[in-house]
Amino acid sequence: MTPSTLYVCVTCRGATPAAAEGPRAGVRLLEAIERQLGEADDGLAVTPVECLSNCQRGCSAAVAAAGKWTYVIGDLDPDRHAGDIVDFARLHRAHELGLPVWRERPAHIRKSTIARVPPMKFEEQR
Amino acid sequence: MTPSTLYVCVTCRGATPAAAEGPRAGVRLLEAIERQLGEADDGLAVTPVECLSNCQRGCSAAVAAAGKWTYVIGDLDPDRHAGDIVDFARLHRAHELGLPVWRERPAHIRKSTIARVPPMKFEEQR
Repeated sequence: MTPSTLYVCVTCRGATPAAAEGPRAGVRLLEAIERQLGEADDGLAVTPVECLSNCQRGCSAAVAAAGKWTYVIGDLDPDRHAGDIVDFARLHRAHELGLPVWRERPAHIRKSTIARVPPMKFEEQR
Repeated sequence: MTPSTLYVCVTCRGATPAAAEGPRAGVRLLEAIERQLGEADDGLAVTPVECLSNCQRGCSAAVAAAGKWTYVIGDLDPDRHAGDIVDFARLHRAHELGLPVWRERPAHIRKSTIARVPPMKFEEQR
């Protein structure tokens, strides 16, 4: 199975104002995702990124893999949605083209999909 | 120079209701982009796609190339913004990492960037 990468924006401030001190919402989302994954080696890599340019609907993460569709997911609350984005990344990894079945995607992911982009060498659809 | 691909969503209905007959706004955007490019072989490929999942802010296009950042751009009016997205795609192609200088990007592209995703094998930023 091709491994999938979860890119997590660590500069996101999130939907609600954070305390002046303490980590940014994006950093907390990253930490929540890493806790969720634990020590399991299930073909998911997590990579922090400075800005996925989805600032209006942060926190943000993207799921990508060689030869597969890339998904950008927004509106992620570090306290509530780490499990959803990890579940979606596992479905993405399990699907040959990175296109999880719609009804199997977590509800929050369905509502908060910001964009998707086809894999390289994608054949045109007319 | 690595070629860049412009993925254009041809299922977008656009911001304004179209006539019941006639092509969808996304198809008109595709045609406008192809007219803009003309016969020039400048390292840009145009690929129609069914849905980039940016339906709330269509019309939509994405710019991608192997080893570079991918950008998703929205709010594209087929009658007004084909030149802007082509200019942005040329800047993307000209930049080693696909990161055009902010002030050189067309104003509409700066306002309407929906998301960006790092290239494969991107090193983490902590």
